[in-house]
Amino acid sequence: MQVGIIGATGYGGLELLRLLYNHSKVETIHLFSSSEDGIPFSNKYTHLRKIIDQPLQKIEPEALRKLDVIFTSTPSGVSSKLIPEILNEKVKVIDLSGDFRIKNTEDYEKWYKLPSAPLHIIEKSVYGLTEWNEKQIENANLIANPGCYPTAVLLSLLPLLKDNLIDSKSLIIDAKSGISGAGNKPNANNHFCETNDNTSIYKINQHQHIPEIEQAMAMFAEKNNPITFSTHLVPMNRGIMATSYANLQVGVTKEDLYNSLYNKYEKHPFVRVIENTTKINTSQVRGTNYCDIHINVDERTGRATIISVIDNLVKGAAGQAIQNMNVMFGYEITTGLTQIPIWI
Amino acid sequence: MQVGIIGATGYGGLELLRLLYNHSKVETIHLFSSSEDGIPFSNKYTHLRKIIDQPLQKIEPEALRKLDVIFTSTPSGVSSKLIPEILNEKVKVIDLSGDFRIKNTEDYEKWYKLPSAPLHIIEKSVYGLTEWNEKQIENANLIANPGCYPTAVLLSLLPLLKDNLIDSKSLIIDAKSGISGAGNKPNANNHFCETNDNTSIYKINQHQHIPEIEQAMAMFAEKNNPITFSTHLVPMNRGIMATSYANLQVGVTKEDLYNSLYNKYEKHPFVRVIENTTKINTSQVRGTNYCDIHINVDERTGRATIISVIDNLVKGAAGQAIQNMNVMFGYEITTGLTQIPIWI
Amino acid sequence: MQVGIIGATGYGGLELLRLLYNHSKVETIHLFSSSEDGIPFSNKYTHLRKIIDQPLQKIEPEALRKLDVIFTSTPSGVSSKLIPEILNEKVKVIDLSGDFRIKNTEDYEKWYKLPSAPLHIIEKSVYGLTEWNEKQIENANLIANPGCYPTAVLLSLLPLLKDNLIDSKSLIIDAKSGISGAGNKPNANNHFCETNDNTSIYKINQHQHIPEIEQAMAMFAEKNNPITFSTHLVPMNRGIMATSYANLQVGVTKEDLYNSLYNKYEKHPFVRVIENTTKINTSQVRGTNYCDIHINVDERTGRATIISVIDNLVKGAAGQAIQNMNVMFGYEITTGLTQIPIWI
Amino acid sequence: MQVGIIGATGYGGLELLRLLYNHSKVETIHLFSSSEDGIPFSNKYTHLRKIIDQPLQKIEPEALRKLDVIFTSTPSGVSSKLIPEILNEKVKVIDLSGDFRIKNTEDYEKWYKLPSAPLHIIEKSVYGLTEWNEKQIENANLIANPGCYPTAVLLSLLPLLKDNLIDSKSLIIDAKSGISGAGNKPNANNHFCETNDNTSIYKINQHQHIPEIEQAMAMFAEKNNPITFSTHLVPMNRGIMATSYANLQVGVTKEDLYNSLYNKYEKHPFVRVIENTTKINTSQVRGTNYCDIHINVDERTGRATIISVIDNLVKGAAGQAIQNMNVMFGYEITTGLTQIPIWI
Repeated sequence: MQVGIIGATGYGGLELLRLLYNHSKVETIHLFSSSEDGIPFSNKYTHLRKIIDQPLQKIEPEALRKLDVIFTSTPSGVSSKLIPEILNEKVKVIDLSGDFRIKNTEDYEKWYKLPSAPLHIIEKSVYGLTEWNEKQIENANLIANPGCYPTAVLLSLLPLLKDNLIDSKSLIIDAKSGISGAGNKPNANNHFCETNDNTSIYKINQHQHIPEIEQAMAMFAEKNNPITFSTHLVPMNRGIMATSYANLQVGVTKEDLYNSLYNKYEKHPFVRVIENTTKINTSQVRGTNYCDIHINVDERTGRATIISVIDNLVKGAAGQAIQNMNVMFGYEITTGLTQIPIWI
Repeated sequence: MQVGIIGATGYGGLELLRLLYNHSKVETIHLFSSSEDGIPFSNKYTHLRKIIDQPLQKIEPEALRKLDVIFTSTPSGVSSKLIPEILNEKVKVIDLSGDFRIKNTEDYEKWYKLPSAPLHIIEKSVYGLTEWNEKQIENANLIANPGCYPTAVLLSLLPLLKDNLIDSKSLIIDAKSGISGAGNKPNANNHFCETNDNTSIYKINQHQHIPEIEQAMAMFAEKNNPITFSTHLVPMNRGIMATSYANLQVGVTKEDLYNSLYNKYEKHPFVRVIENTTKINTSQVRGTNYCDIHINVDERTGRATIISVIDNLVKGAAGQAIQNMNVMFGYEITTGLTQIPIWI
Repeated sequence: MQVGIIGATGYGGLELLRLLYNHSKVETIHLFSSSEDGIPFSNKYTHLRKIIDQPLQKIEPEALRKLDVIFTSTPSGVSSKLIPEILNEKVKVIDLSGDFRIKNTEDYEKWYKLPSAPLHIIEKSVYGLTEWNEKQIENANLIANPGCYPTAVLLSLLPLLKDNLIDSKSLIIDAKSGISGAGNKPNANNHFCETNDNTSIYKINQHQHIPEIEQAMAMFAEKNNPITFSTHLVPMNRGIMATSYANLQVGVTKEDLYNSLYNKYEKHPFVRVIENTTKINTSQVRGTNYCDIHINVDERTGRATIISVIDNLVKGAAGQAIQNMNVMFGYEITTGLTQIPIWI
Repeated sequence: MQVGIIGATGYGGLELLRLLYNHSKVETIHLFSSSEDGIPFSNKYTHLRKIIDQPLQKIEPEALRKLDVIFTSTPSGVSSKLIPEILNEKVKVIDLSGDFRIKNTEDYEKWYKLPSAPLHIIEKSVYGLTEWNEKQIENANLIANPGCYPTAVLLSLLPLLKDNLIDSKSLIIDAKSGISGAGNKPNANNHFCETNDNTSIYKINQHQHIPEIEQAMAMFAEKNNPITFSTHLVPMNRGIMATSYANLQVGVTKEDLYNSLYNKYEKHPFVRVIENTTKINTSQVRGTNYCDIHINVDERTGRATIISVIDNLVKGAAGQAIQNMNVMFGYEITTGLTQIPIWI
């Protein structure tokens, strides 16, 4: 298989490269960059010396259309312009940006503060939350790969919402992320000294992943209501923990909640339901495509605390994108994704 | 003034020492340790060479009773036994452990899983949440200094609860803490490699600070109901961020919430209400006695997100203890506590 | 192949597991623990849920002798007693501890302050610095796998010493390591708060890796003299950087030094000589078996500064052990070791 | 006293502010910025809300000349132009940049790659290594405040060099620094993910502090020779450890080395000679003006390993600048600088 990565120099692109490099079905990986074409990739990223010394290529639609699959890992507003030029009968495109996720173009423009992608292409795109949309993904030509926060949140909440075990109107989601989520472009919010030994909250109830989560809750669980959603930056490279709170529907027990998760994810190798534990943390999925889920029920308040952890660069980006590629091409779903977590 | 610190080798004790050392009213600081008496303090803590070279003293009630004020910064279950022996007409005691905080001895034993302090002494103790209990503190001989999480949570929520602006039954508190909160005794949960680059959740709805928060909400705001409370460890030395979520009472606006805070804290120098900002993080109070509070109101959901940050070792422990000492002895409340935050 | 790991719950053991799990020649991995047998491994390490749920086994020589290869990743002083009981005609043993590295038993006892392993077994053991001892390793039954610091130091210095380009008497080695090098047993020196945001120096000229480095310099480069060696702890999980300083022999140029490295390592895939760069850091080898080497020559002083970086848990422990296994069993040397560095 | 800080928004400026704020002789602090005048300081730095709300002022020589003392904490090349305009009979200037440190203008231009300050002003400036130049500082109008690395290096080595106990030609200095040393302007080398969990080496034998160290060794110890000097970045906010290596002169003992340090620093409160210890690390001076020094002598090699640690922002910048101000104005040298180290 001939694979292309556009935006190979970003964190998403680097992670695609790391995972695709040992993917048994991938023959050649072509790397594209809008600004650094011609430079040997390993000049920029010394860790790739002797491994990936090939130069970055210029983004040329003609060449791109000949590939089997293209991953676009670009800042918001880039792939909405680029993908319409590339898309043809043959090539499959998996877009890791948010540009094709929001079906309602007004919502996109409101939350992203950018012009939307063309509606007719958005309509063709398929939301790539693999465990929930596998049939659609199989036949898609364009995947809107989910955002990192939505992946963590949706995988844990959708079964419970769909089975009507928790009250969707009561949903409060408190998410914590490592710094890589914001990309590798230096700015005051990712300077080491400003983030080290520091926890901050940002975009309170204003994060662009809110409409994506709400849309998916409507799509997969038929729940239509706004959520409370806040995002925190903690001083670590990778990892997201989403701590969600919801009122239980009348009579619902902890057992019901776990059964809902077990039923849904029994045959899905990348979601691990962890019932009996005192340990749930982001390290336990580092470097892998796992999403771990744990639930606590507080009988004093009648509320559930639902925790899910992912590696934002893997299950929250590159790993899920490759999982989608596996589905699209009919490969075993775990191909290239069987790494053990790199615990420390 | 002659001051004693029992448990001087712990993080709370070290922080008391750091702050009391430059307190203008303190003449001598006596350091006590149950296990390391006789050792020059600066042998154990090299950072104190040439500053505090005096040996640690044995804990002897006779000697202790002659001091003006004693700070006990000891593990749970220690001061409940020690303080009854020391307490007399003269000496004032400020206990930084949880042993005297819970008025209901059954609740203490349930949540702490330890025998309670004697009820007649608990009854004499005064809860040292300075901004809310100043009159009582003025005349107290024994202060139960608040826990780190309760301090962050209560300072931000009590005005809103008391003014009936938020629904106490809807309260959900998601707290994040640096690692020092768990003390300096090495264990698997504070090993560097296990905590670095990692975020974890622990004691979900089971933290011993829950009854303390609920008791204070009843005491100061007349709200009696259980709360949802979860605690997270993030890889930083110091700092707590409490992110609280509550439904607004009907008709309540963001302005009402801020007015409640402004009214309450106008004359309290250590609480900073920060309305117009995109930056709220734990570094902005590092090394100081400040508690910073910010509120976001989401009109889509009718909920408030209330954020407060403190340095767990200062406002959440040693700083508030000294603030209480200042109140008890009639000193200017800011004495010894005017450090600027050590931003990085 | 049937593989055993003794000491599977330590950091070395966990890393062996991570790497062996995807090794194409490994059929079954048996996990042994002296203290925790019977417990499902993933109870202790949640990150291995659904991956390695098998229980830890009791250490029984009878069973061990039936395996094809055993990795012992145990504290100093353990394998010196255990391995003599296991070793037979069939099983091959790769010891990751220091117990069989020092040929002179007096030196071992002086530097390790422990009784040495039996001399007749030490004499049979082969020092597993793969790039320098491949022929011996091929036929060995017992490998003394090199220490983490020695691996970084020796790979960079041996070619230059052997080719007589630098003065061995002038050698000064300043090494920096992440915290995992000291194992996962909690103590005051690996408590998060004591190590975070802190750099320390320890065991100055007293580290037990000194005799190992000196012995290898004599063995592979015929240089017999003491070295100056200091070790620093920096706040990171993994990684070693060894910065070595040496006077150039008369007339030697930077080109000579690089040629020496190129000649030696041309056919060795895990040593990367990086000549033109401004970036050399520990992240560029994270999670991999690479050793990266860079040299600076200062014409003002006539000295070379020689930098090498490794991941202490991979090339400095588990990775090199597997590389040795590959040599012992005649597999392609890169089998199971082709991971791309996990840059962030 | 009326004090001005130019470059108040940088890390050096912030640290000056933190320390001067509680300095008993300082009446008013005026804050100047070339690019952000008019903005309330606490809008930019939320940690200063309610403490320093005053706006940043425009840099106007007229107003500056009326102050008692001005600290310039600006990037290289700025104060060389600005200070000649300000300097008059009255105002004293302490420059924290490197612009006036190098007496030889060619050397400055070679190492800094910038035009030098005017020679006639450089000649009037006094090098502010307080413990070594106190007499000159007393009468100076312009202080060239030492660099962070030179301060750590020189304080530990100058006594030994001056007393001819170590061979200056053998000197090798391996320095490690936290990230704040490079300032707060975001770039690829201080992005959190690029520096966290990573150690790097940079500017090997090319750091602009090399000529400063060599000049001071000539000036204070009459040693004229090039040094080997390398600098490493470790993932921490603050702190420098300089590990220096030197051959002992014939017959010199460890006792001689310590006596040299004791003799020199007996009456200097900010240098702590720590002889009997296994702990020497950067945290032990965090937030303070201390420089801690420890020496190890290795009898096997006849070499000394000399370690010194400072807080790069305090003793390596703002603290030493204030110490110099205290000398210039005849204040007690510890005024405003008696903070206890903030250990964790």
